[in-house]
Amino acid sequence: MPRAPIPTGPATPALSRRVDALASSRIRELLRLVDRPGVLSLAGGLPAPSTLDAERVGDAARLALGRQGTLGPTALQYGPTEGIDELRAIVAERHDVELDHVLITTGSQQAIDLLARTLGDVDDTAVVEAPSYLGALQSFTAAQVRVHAIDGDEDGLDVGALEEELSCGLAPSLVYVVANFHNPTGSVLRVERRRRLAALSAEYGFFVIEDDPYGELRFDGDAVPCVATFGGHVVRLGSASKILAPGLRIGWMVGPPAVIEAATRLKQAADLHTPSLNQLIVATLLRDTERQADHLDTVRELYRRRAGALHHALQTHLGDRVTAHTPRGGMFVWANATDETDTHDLFAHAIDHGVAYVPGTAFSVEDGRFRTAMRLSFATLTPEKLNEAVRRLAAAWP
Amino acid sequence: MPRAPIPTGPATPALSRRVDALASSRIRELLRLVDRPGVLSLAGGLPAPSTLDAERVGDAARLALGRQGTLGPTALQYGPTEGIDELRAIVAERHDVELDHVLITTGSQQAIDLLARTLGDVDDTAVVEAPSYLGALQSFTAAQVRVHAIDGDEDGLDVGALEEELSCGLAPSLVYVVANFHNPTGSVLRVERRRRLAALSAEYGFFVIEDDPYGELRFDGDAVPCVATFGGHVVRLGSASKILAPGLRIGWMVGPPAVIEAATRLKQAADLHTPSLNQLIVATLLRDTERQADHLDTVRELYRRRAGALHHALQTHLGDRVTAHTPRGGMFVWANATDETDTHDLFAHAIDHGVAYVPGTAFSVEDGRFRTAMRLSFATLTPEKLNEAVRRLAAAWP
Repeated sequence: MPRAPIPTGPATPALSRRVDALASSRIRELLRLVDRPGVLSLAGGLPAPSTLDAERVGDAARLALGRQGTLGPTALQYGPTEGIDELRAIVAERHDVELDHVLITTGSQQAIDLLARTLGDVDDTAVVEAPSYLGALQSFTAAQVRVHAIDGDEDGLDVGALEEELSCGLAPSLVYVVANFHNPTGSVLRVERRRRLAALSAEYGFFVIEDDPYGELRFDGDAVPCVATFGGHVVRLGSASKILAPGLRIGWMVGPPAVIEAATRLKQAADLHTPSLNQLIVATLLRDTERQADHLDTVRELYRRRAGALHHALQTHLGDRVTAHTPRGGMFVWANATDETDTHDLFAHAIDHGVAYVPGTAFSVEDGRFRTAMRLSFATLTPEKLNEAVRRLAAAWP
Repeated sequence: MPRAPIPTGPATPALSRRVDALASSRIRELLRLVDRPGVLSLAGGLPAPSTLDAERVGDAARLALGRQGTLGPTALQYGPTEGIDELRAIVAERHDVELDHVLITTGSQQAIDLLARTLGDVDDTAVVEAPSYLGALQSFTAAQVRVHAIDGDEDGLDVGALEEELSCGLAPSLVYVVANFHNPTGSVLRVERRRRLAALSAEYGFFVIEDDPYGELRFDGDAVPCVATFGGHVVRLGSASKILAPGLRIGWMVGPPAVIEAATRLKQAADLHTPSLNQLIVATLLRDTERQADHLDTVRELYRRRAGALHHALQTHLGDRVTAHTPRGGMFVWANATDETDTHDLFAHAIDHGVAYVPGTAFSVEDGRFRTAMRLSFATLTPEKLNEAVRRLAAAWP
């Protein structure tokens, strides 16, 4: 194929606007450095390698590939856009809903993208917590939905502040929350705030997107009822990425049938359907509830120990130069420099010292916030490597 | 989860507009009937069940799952948005381009969707051939890009008519073509038209999306050079769906790096990346060029015989009540009723007789065109069943 230059005609402005709008380019460029050999990365949200069980998935794949439908092996043939009923039924049972409340998606990232385009219109407003999950911000930006950030604290989104803005005329199409072990802050939305948020969604007519990839990764304390428990207009997102394997790209959306129907039509245009093979693999793995419970116990115990190791390493090597809450689940610690260290400026220096993290600015809607913060993942590295990574971070500290 | 009613607040108009805009609802409702037990379907674009080789894919899956990266089994871990280099390299080699010209997508449907959103802006114009692939129309509609149809004939899109409209002020962002064995018509874009289309893209500054899922399914005659051969601004789409298995959902996009870069950023928001397991499976299968060549020979021979059987059945049972060209590849025959039979009205009647097809109106941009046409697939059914299906169709004929 010839290396054609980008045309100078009508196609160019749209293209370059799109490239700019999807920004995060600086962050992407920055994060490329993470893969440099020898760098210990606290940056990624990657599950611990030891929890990715290739043998178990291989067994499930063999079973999946043996399944014959009238049109050949079900795992290899086209499938319905809404997902294979077998997996939908498992998700429906987990959430105590009927099948028509469930859409299987290509990771929960796709669910966010479909909802951004289904629930929001161009120039509509999506409310997010500040700081917020970068992937959600990208989906809203791509859908040309305006992002309005409301601060969160250690108890999650400040729902009181949201209520005040709603009463002053803020009219969002949707409010996006990660209620359990927020990315990046690790916070858990307090139960009273969940109840109030559900009530506000009914009162003001917006949808809550309750994204919950980490809910099953609680290793300390009691589970909090999900926002959807309290009624209102809530679409829940789930994912196999953190409880099984992200490389399978299986997620789901659970919500009112009218939303599921609209999202399904959009999904038909987006990728026809999620891979049949992967859906059958995940259905096989989740159906074996005993083995999956054992697996989750193992993952939780591993992350509990690693979270403890990271906490200990921060105290040992950085002491009172950073503050960080002790996580009770999930994968992340949100650490703040108490000495005004700019984590964005520090990054290149840290890489030179062989350690990576995500600077707080990456999670900001407005430029320049969270300059003293950083997201540290305790999931990917062993306790020994976590300790060494923080030692290097301390060595890079100004 | 409570069965909340759809809110009556600000979220509703956007949602209901979206549901309407993604239309195809009548067609979708209609095609649900296809799955009725006992119905022989000429409707789907599904590969022949016998060509979906679960054992071969199983072997590849075992190999894929054995691959260890620094972050655990590569098949199960998060991967780069642009795709796994191993598969990108195979695609790059097939198209004689560098790696940065290739993006791996979740089926080529996702490639259309990403390009609709990358190359086109809201209210931009996309030119398609009439009749056109339904999935592309859905992606353009979802991206709120205006669709402008220009008629095709047995030699594909009427590029002369396009040129005339361009000279009169038509300024599309993109022109979408299926140059080889068009869906639904089965036409092949004539070589002179390909050359002219490439030149026009350079002259008027639009992109050509050259979607090519069927190019390797030629069972008669010589291959025609692709549009991209002639320069201009062309993005080529390919897919493993028709040459390996659609249930794996692996497609790719090959184009100028600036387009690939923009589409990659959008893909990050759309689904982070295409499943790692599936990419490694397809890379393994395509790398074994000898076995894949044998496989394609088998598929082509099978489809050649089935195309012949369908042609024969049409002559035998419907005679001069329909006209249809003899296909030289692909999966479809576009048949036209010579007696003004309305294939949309006929559909329910045909289902009652135990046969399904896709009415021509499904492929129309403007309502009500192609009322005497229908798309018949010869790929899915055996010659015996193709004969029986057409016998039933003749019995249902008014």
